[in-house]
Formats: sequence, C-alpha cells, structure tokens
Amino acid sequence: MISDEDFIKDPKVPGPTKEEIRCLVMCKSEVSKDDIVVEVGCGTGGLTLEFARLAEKVYAVDKNPKALKITNMNLEKHKMQDNVQLIQGSAPQVFNELPSFNILMVGGSSGELSPIIENGYKKLNPNGKIIVTAILLETRLEAILNMQKVGLKPDIIDVHISKGKIIKRGTMMEGRNPVAIISAKKI
Amino acid sequence: MISDEDFIKDPKVPGPTKEEIRCLVMCKSEVSKDDIVVEVGCGTGGLTLEFARLAEKVYAVDKNPKALKITNMNLEKHKMQDNVQLIQGSAPQVFNELPSFNILMVGGSSGELSPIIENGYKKLNPNGKIIVTAILLETRLEAILNMQKVGLKPDIIDVHISKGKIIKRGTMMEGRNPVAIISAKKI
Amino acid sequence: MISDEDFIKDPKVPGPTKEEIRCLVMCKSEVSKDDIVVEVGCGTGGLTLEFARLAEKVYAVDKNPKALKITNMNLEKHKMQDNVQLIQGSAPQVFNELPSFNILMVGGSSGELSPIIENGYKKLNPNGKIIVTAILLETRLEAILNMQKVGLKPDIIDVHISKGKIIKRGTMMEGRNPVAIISAKKI
Amino acid sequence: MISDEDFIKDPKVPGPTKEEIRCLVMCKSEVSKDDIVVEVGCGTGGLTLEFARLAEKVYAVDKNPKALKITNMNLEKHKMQDNVQLIQGSAPQVFNELPSFNILMVGGSSGELSPIIENGYKKLNPNGKIIVTAILLETRLEAILNMQKVGLKPDIIDVHISKGKIIKRGTMMEGRNPVAIISAKKI
Repeated sequence: MISDEDFIKDPKVPGPTKEEIRCLVMCKSEVSKDDIVVEVGCGTGGLTLEFARLAEKVYAVDKNPKALKITNMNLEKHKMQDNVQLIQGSAPQVFNELPSFNILMVGGSSGELSPIIENGYKKLNPNGKIIVTAILLETRLEAILNMQKVGLKPDIIDVHISKGKIIKRGTMMEGRNPVAIISAKKI
Repeated sequence: MISDEDFIKDPKVPGPTKEEIRCLVMCKSEVSKDDIVVEVGCGTGGLTLEFARLAEKVYAVDKNPKALKITNMNLEKHKMQDNVQLIQGSAPQVFNELPSFNILMVGGSSGELSPIIENGYKKLNPNGKIIVTAILLETRLEAILNMQKVGLKPDIIDVHISKGKIIKRGTMMEGRNPVAIISAKKI
Repeated sequence: MISDEDFIKDPKVPGPTKEEIRCLVMCKSEVSKDDIVVEVGCGTGGLTLEFARLAEKVYAVDKNPKALKITNMNLEKHKMQDNVQLIQGSAPQVFNELPSFNILMVGGSSGELSPIIENGYKKLNPNGKIIVTAILLETRLEAILNMQKVGLKPDIIDVHISKGKIIKRGTMMEGRNPVAIISAKKI
Repeated sequence: MISDEDFIKDPKVPGPTKEEIRCLVMCKSEVSKDDIVVEVGCGTGGLTLEFARLAEKVYAVDKNPKALKITNMNLEKHKMQDNVQLIQGSAPQVFNELPSFNILMVGGSSGELSPIIENGYKKLNPNGKIIVTAILLETRLEAILNMQKVGLKPDIIDVHISKGKIIKRGTMMEGRNPVAIISAKKI
C-alpha cells in the first residue's frame, strides 16, 4: 500500500483513508485487473490510487472541486493518472453517463446513500461489489439497510486499529478512529 | 465522576485519566470509606480526586513537583484537600514512611514497577488491592509479571473506548487511546 | 461490583451485563442513595442488583416472566430483595403506575425505545438520568435520536474490552462484544 | 481472500487466521510474484494459501505434523500445492537448509521468536520483510524487541475487529479477539 505520509493533503478535504483501511477495502472489493471501478467521494484520493494500481479503469467522482484537485495532485505525484477519470458532480446523476461497472466504492455520500446504492446497483455487473466505508453511525446503518433493500447481503466489519508508537519509555498504543466497511456482492 | 473538562491541566503533566478509565479503576479498587489509598504517579490528580471522594485518606506520590502542584490546584478547585496528602518523592522509598494501606494505585512508575509492586505488596493490608493503569505495552506485561511474582492473580482488561461526537451530518465515532487496567487482590 | 460468575443464569434470558459495563453504567447514572430507579428489560438482573446496592428503590420491568424469575433468584442469592420491586409488563404502560423517578435504565426495549424514552422522560425528575445500553447498531442510533427528540444531549461511548487470559505460553487477549452506553441528564 | 469458512479445520490445530488479518498481513508483506516466502507456524494454512496465491514459492514450516497435514488438505482443496513446500521441523534450524528469502512470516514461534528473528534476518534478502502476528501480549513485545535488536524499525498495529451479525431485531456487533501485526523491512 501507499504510505499515509505519501499523500498530498488539504485541510479542507477529508482523507486519505488510512493504510490499513485501504488494504481491507481492496480485499473486500476483490478488485482484479479487468475491473471498472466507480468511486463516490474520492476526497484526497487514497482509495482512488489503490484502485488505479489494481483495476482497468477508475472513475473518481466528487462534488467538491478541491477534492478532485488534490486527488489529481496525488495521481500525478505517483504517476497514476493513466487509468483514472475525475468527474465533478453528484453521484446518482453521474452514473447515467458511465458504462456499467464491477466495483462501486462509496467513501462519501453527502446524504444520498440511498439513491447511490439503488442506482449504482442497477449499473453494477453480475458478481460486482458495492463497498461503503463509514465513520458515522448513521452511515453504517443506511449502508446496511439500503443494501438489503436491493437484495444484497452485506458483510459488516467495524475496524478499530491501535498503532504502536515507540517512545523512550516503551511502546505506546495510540487509538485510531474506528471505520466500518460494509460490502456486498451482486449475484 | 468528575468530568474530564473540570480538571485544571498542564501540558507538562500527564492526565487527567479519562472519566471512563477512572470509573473502571474505582470499581476494580473496590474502594470504601475506611480505606487508606496510596497513589504512585498522581499526574494531574484525576484518580486522586476520585479516591479522595470515596476513601478515608489518600497519599498521592509523584516525582515531579509540577504534578503535585497541578494535583493540588485540582483538589482546591473541587474542595477536596482535606483527606489528601501530597508527597514528592520516589515511590518504593516513600512507602517506608507511610502506614500500611488498603489500595495501591500505580498510574506512573518511572521504570520502577518491580520494586513498587514488591514493596507495595508488603505494606498492603489483607484484602487490599493493587491496580496498575498502563498505556505502554511494556507496563502491561511488567504489571502482570510482577504481580504474579508476589503471588497475586492479576485481572487484566484492555479498554478501548470510542466516543460519539454529534456533528451536522451525524454521529462520528472517535477512538481514544487504549488503556489497560491490571488489578489484583491480596488474600 | 458483583463478579460475572456470581450470577445465576438461564440460556433463555440475556445477561448478566458484564462487570465492566455495569461499572460504567453506574458511573454514568450518578446513582445515589435517595434515587428511585426504573429499569426496563432487567434480563438476568445484573444491573438490577448493582442499582439495588446503591439506590433507594429499584423497579425492574421485563416482559418475560422468565427474566423476572432469574432476577429474583439473583436478588435472593445476594440478599438484595428489600428495595427491588419486580414488574412484568410493557415498559411505556408500566410507567403510568409508578411514581416519578431519578434514573431510567433501558437494557432491553423490544422495539419500543421511542415511547420508552418519550414517556420515561416525562416521569423523570429534574437532574434525572436516562441510560440506554446497546448491543445493536440500530439501538445505538434510536437512543441518540429519541434522546435528542425530547431535548436531551446524549453522551455516547462505545466500549470494547479485551480480557487478558493467562495461559501456559503467556497472556492471551480475548475480545468481548462491544457495548454502547448512551446517557443524558434532564436539566 | 479465501473465506474463513472455506478452510478445513482441526480442533487441535490453531487457525485459520481470520480473513481480515490475512488481508492486512498480505498488505504489510508487500508480497509480489517473484518472492520467496518462509512461514513459521503455518497451523491450518490460512496464510500459507494466501501467500501461495501471490508469491513464487512458499516454505511452510511447523513442528506439529498435524498442522502440516491440515495445511496440505487445504492446499489440495484449493488446488494450490504447486508452489508450496511443507517442512516439519524447528524454525531456526530449518532456515539453514533453505535458500535466502524475501518474506519471513511468523504465525507461531513456540517460544523461539528471538532466534527465529535473529537467524531469519540473516537469510532475508535486502528489502525483505519480517512479519509477526501475535495473540499474546508477550509475543507483541518480543517481536518488537527482537526486531529492534537486529536493527529493524517495527511497524506495530493492534487490530480489533467487530463483525456485524444481522439478527431479527437488528445488527449485532460481535467482538473478535484482537491480533497484533508487527512488521519491518530490511534496508
């Protein structure tokens, strides 16, 4: 994985998703080199770059032009612009202009998780995956309910990672904010 | 419990121990109103004040004069100086000048956990409790090993608390640093 | 606290609430000896007994007669029946027959958390506390939303405890199921 | 990743390492298709199969013949025997008969973590990785100290995962045992 420190950041743009969460998202996505990925709420581009490394094509969508700018800077820094298309806009609408896809990754939903999952599901290829990362309690539950609504059976993990920091007196364990990963496969 | 925000703090003094950890330490200590408590490494005084509220007498020891000053300011703020004696010094030596006690609470040990537990155990009354709070991996293990060395059977819990913060979009879960509480009763 | 092992259990009755969670509930409740406590969903009686130890009077309500029977067996075992009244019934209705109270503890709500909080709030004395323990994601969110609806500002903690188990090769950390405690004070 | 349920298990053999931990180990290992991997304490073969999928060659070592038997059954089940060699024996000795390697994965060390890391480090190619998974507090600390002893700078994460289980009343969060992953790169 790309190290958390290797991303250009902006205080007004969320992310990057921490290394361990990016790792778990990649595993849950079962991404492979022929996959078309649509990412909603790309923020700093943490997951965008990981998907770009492993997939055929990534469409990274965000409402916030600043997020797209930072994501682009990170793609440039890591020389990974080739298979990523950045799209400014609102997710459920943007889907109409995109080809069908294999992976829908939702990192930010601006309160529109329900139409994102409903419409995203329609554009999702068979065996495709929907993944939602959630820092809010509300998002955890909306992701579960909306996946169930379209007939998916969500896998839900809540990930609490403590990081060991070696200081003079020993190894201090520092808590990270928990992140939930809700994912499901279209059958 | 006293709220975390109700303590006077100093950037050079650790603490106060967070409310939930103070609560669990009180429960594990089984403190009651006739108890004599010795606290090693009182820091900001978080646990000192809780013990002062519930015990007969608290001896709060710290090597750092600044810690004792802050603890004293917090005792004054909450009008709880009456049954607390502040002692500057090194814990295993200080024990010699103290009466026997019912609770030994170690919040900071400056690398001397082994003699603190060994000598503290000798001064501990029957049914007395030793409690160690640990933020370092090393302290977790030293507490267990040194308690076992004097024949105690430690109870070990590692406490990870996430706090819900209500923001505009919902309830964000924020991770706290994990703290271990190792405790044992002298039989 | 009473040890987890010291409760009589029944496979069909949930609980007892683990020692550390009971401890945190007691602290969040700020229970004192003049308090009237109403507990909804007493289950095995874990919290009932802790409140009985510290409060003036506890009304323990459960829909399930088996739960009340087990709670009663635990009260008898620990000789704590004196200030506990067991009530079979549905919580929001039962409130009508009770005096006003200082603490409303909800450990199980059978899908009626909204009326329990709404009606319970009306019977709650000034400075009274409402506490909800939640093992479900849904309950976490319903507790927050319903407390906010009656004008309360909930304190939310999600508690993850690992317990150290000493085996031949060392100290194994065993994860417990996380429990959320949502609490608020009526002002 | 292979699903936890897709492994043949034996009550006397530890493992398989849970899916999410396997995922994080793969990321921390930075395994690629030319890598030679040595795995000490393969147990059920959970990590063996993941490495076999991604690396050139895996040498899976275990003292326990039953573990090797189960690992072999899992390799057969998933048709992955081609690039895995199973070796019964004690790790630091076995290293002598092996070529140099790129990844040393230690899932079980039978109290010999110090010589395993010391000798393994010598056989490790430049840019090679050592990874230790730990369920014991003691192993966490020994891994850190022994990596530091040979000049490595360990990355330490303690992973606490709760799994959402959908039951009739909602989504219950179930705690898993925490696992630490200590890893370092030879420079």
